[in-house]
Amino acid sequence: MNIQEIIAKKRDKLELTKEEIDYFIKGYTEGTITDYQASALIMAIYINGMNYRETTDLTLAIAFSGDVLNLSTLGEVVDKHSTGGVGDKITLILMPIIASLGIPVAKMSGRGLGFTGGTIDKLESIPGYNTSITIDEFIENVRKVGISLMGQTLNLAPADKKIYALRDAIACTESIPLIASSIMSKKIAAGANKIVIDVTCGSGAFMKTKEDAEKLAEIMTSIGKLAGKETVCIITPMDEPVGYAIGNILEVIEAVDILKNKYMPKDVKSIIEELGANMLVLANKVSNIEDGKKLIIENIQNGKAYQKLLELVKNQGGDISYIENTDKFEKAKYIVPILVTEEGTIAKLDALNIGKLSCYLGAGREKKEDSINPRVGFVFNKKVGDTVKTGEVIGYIHSDDEEKAKEILQQEIVTIK
Amino acid sequence: MNIQEIIAKKRDKLELTKEEIDYFIKGYTEGTITDYQASALIMAIYINGMNYRETTDLTLAIAFSGDVLNLSTLGEVVDKHSTGGVGDKITLILMPIIASLGIPVAKMSGRGLGFTGGTIDKLESIPGYNTSITIDEFIENVRKVGISLMGQTLNLAPADKKIYALRDAIACTESIPLIASSIMSKKIAAGANKIVIDVTCGSGAFMKTKEDAEKLAEIMTSIGKLAGKETVCIITPMDEPVGYAIGNILEVIEAVDILKNKYMPKDVKSIIEELGANMLVLANKVSNIEDGKKLIIENIQNGKAYQKLLELVKNQGGDISYIENTDKFEKAKYIVPILVTEEGTIAKLDALNIGKLSCYLGAGREKKEDSINPRVGFVFNKKVGDTVKTGEVIGYIHSDDEEKAKEILQQEIVTIK
Repeated sequence: MNIQEIIAKKRDKLELTKEEIDYFIKGYTEGTITDYQASALIMAIYINGMNYRETTDLTLAIAFSGDVLNLSTLGEVVDKHSTGGVGDKITLILMPIIASLGIPVAKMSGRGLGFTGGTIDKLESIPGYNTSITIDEFIENVRKVGISLMGQTLNLAPADKKIYALRDAIACTESIPLIASSIMSKKIAAGANKIVIDVTCGSGAFMKTKEDAEKLAEIMTSIGKLAGKETVCIITPMDEPVGYAIGNILEVIEAVDILKNKYMPKDVKSIIEELGANMLVLANKVSNIEDGKKLIIENIQNGKAYQKLLELVKNQGGDISYIENTDKFEKAKYIVPILVTEEGTIAKLDALNIGKLSCYLGAGREKKEDSINPRVGFVFNKKVGDTVKTGEVIGYIHSDDEEKAKEILQQEIVTIK
Repeated sequence: MNIQEIIAKKRDKLELTKEEIDYFIKGYTEGTITDYQASALIMAIYINGMNYRETTDLTLAIAFSGDVLNLSTLGEVVDKHSTGGVGDKITLILMPIIASLGIPVAKMSGRGLGFTGGTIDKLESIPGYNTSITIDEFIENVRKVGISLMGQTLNLAPADKKIYALRDAIACTESIPLIASSIMSKKIAAGANKIVIDVTCGSGAFMKTKEDAEKLAEIMTSIGKLAGKETVCIITPMDEPVGYAIGNILEVIEAVDILKNKYMPKDVKSIIEELGANMLVLANKVSNIEDGKKLIIENIQNGKAYQKLLELVKNQGGDISYIENTDKFEKAKYIVPILVTEEGTIAKLDALNIGKLSCYLGAGREKKEDSINPRVGFVFNKKVGDTVKTGEVIGYIHSDDEEKAKEILQQEIVTIK
């Protein structure tokens, strides 16, 4: 077997065998296959596609290219993943709820790239919270309090990192088989046996159209089945930010407030019900989605999910006084109101635009090495469809830089109709 | 403009502009565009193709990526190129004929890769012949004796060298637009204004089928037209070796013998008539092909072409006593007869197989760095279609290694029917 023959097959739109896919991933991870050879094969895959069997073999080869976590001693671990969006604090809300219902939660999360930080960046904005615990501590924490959320300290799916960087450099990011294998390989390497995936769809998401989101959902469900990891995909809209807050500390505060049952944005409710109920079904906790949804909301209302959050933060070294009193969190220097200049209904609050502006304020990273500013971002108090009056405040810019806030105010943030 | 956008366009089967193609070739030659980015674009070109306009722009960008020779002071220089084959000594025979007819011949030739050496390797097997003269000497030689054949000392089409090496590593050699731009860019950089190309077709050639050869011929003719370099392509068969001799010194001897009018293999006659007559038409020496063919053969028969060869060799430092008496050339240690074991007609004398065996004997290079053995190869005395008797000698293996010759005798070299 040699890489030229494998490239030539995919170039000619033929199906690759499992052995050929394994040979490519092993060689590329080890460096015996060069970047330019991988690049040619990836372009051929982009143009000529891969069927479900090939995509599954690719996923498994990538998953097993580095460390693979074994969580089998913890019982029925159901993992949750989102394909990303703006203001997406669902993990912070949903995982304590799931844990409070007796399902073990052992989740490794990534740092964010673009828009705002990832779950790990958000957790690190809680003083003392340690995301870099050992695997033994991770497992032990789940045993003790039923939940642990940590960063990716293991060498999980190194082939994915190499392929991802290459795809970005050669205009091959938007390939559905490649996106699917990237997501699923990381979940499999992280020890998940059953997986619920939030496939976000809209301006602020990777998948811009419903059609693409459905295709991605279908292929990931199929990979899960073929790989023996039961997978459910839920397509959720991402045209406006999730909830009201965007930015690391700001999203932690919103998640805490929701778990304290202070308020519940409609979109957050719908997402946590859908994803949560499916997780409960997969974990055999309930037999149908409707029962699952009830349990999810019930454990917010009865305070059990909030208690679980406190246990998680405390157990992982975080200062729970910040959770109990979120006013203690650091604030941005300038909190500038956004006023509307006309009355009507909010027609658009574009997730992509808000995501880019948040990143500009410092809430996200453009490059892996960049540091993020946990204080900055946006807090809105209106959603698309709400009515507004002239001069009404619809939200606040949180910025450490007055000029940047002023600049943003010059732009059209909302569209009123 | 950035390379990702250019890659994405060709990935999506869109037409690239001249500016985009220039940007790619310039960036790749200078190293600001990486091998893996070039690799992705080349694969996209392989799969999605290029139209004639794009291929012409690619050709010109590659041609102007390094030195470009200006031969305009020499008058109407008509260049000749062959897409390669086994036993192809046509340049050595045809160029002295053309020069003897008063058409200036200023030709840079390459070294060979695979099968046997290139024209330069063959010329260097003549003691004293200097292929590394300066450009001034080159031009001066043409002025003085009407002909000079030298090696590629200039930095001609460096982008072609990079792309060619890459194509080989990523299974993208067999792309007709890429082959066409590779050939034509080198001809243009070498100063040709009018070009006759021998598109070889058959087992021993790059183009295996008539259909592919016609496609390549058509696209090169078209590039020539669009680039203002009148180009004629002649498709010639390459299923059996050209003439009788294969190997560097052996081919020089055959070329000399043909110019001495000792004998004329049918296939060589047909090729030099076709190519030569077209060159004479392009140079406005004759008005039709038939008149051209007559002049070509006439100048062999009247000895003028042979005299021109002597002038060429002498003028370039070569020892003409070897040309006058070819017995002086070094010989291989073992000259082993090939006997046929049955009577009948020669149905096949496979060029690809003979090419590979010649390379195995040491007549060719597998890698650029390899040195070649000028003495070894094959000399046949039969062609396909000739009848043979049992036990008849149909040719000789010239080898410096007795074992290799014995090994080759074990194989089926000819097919008798």
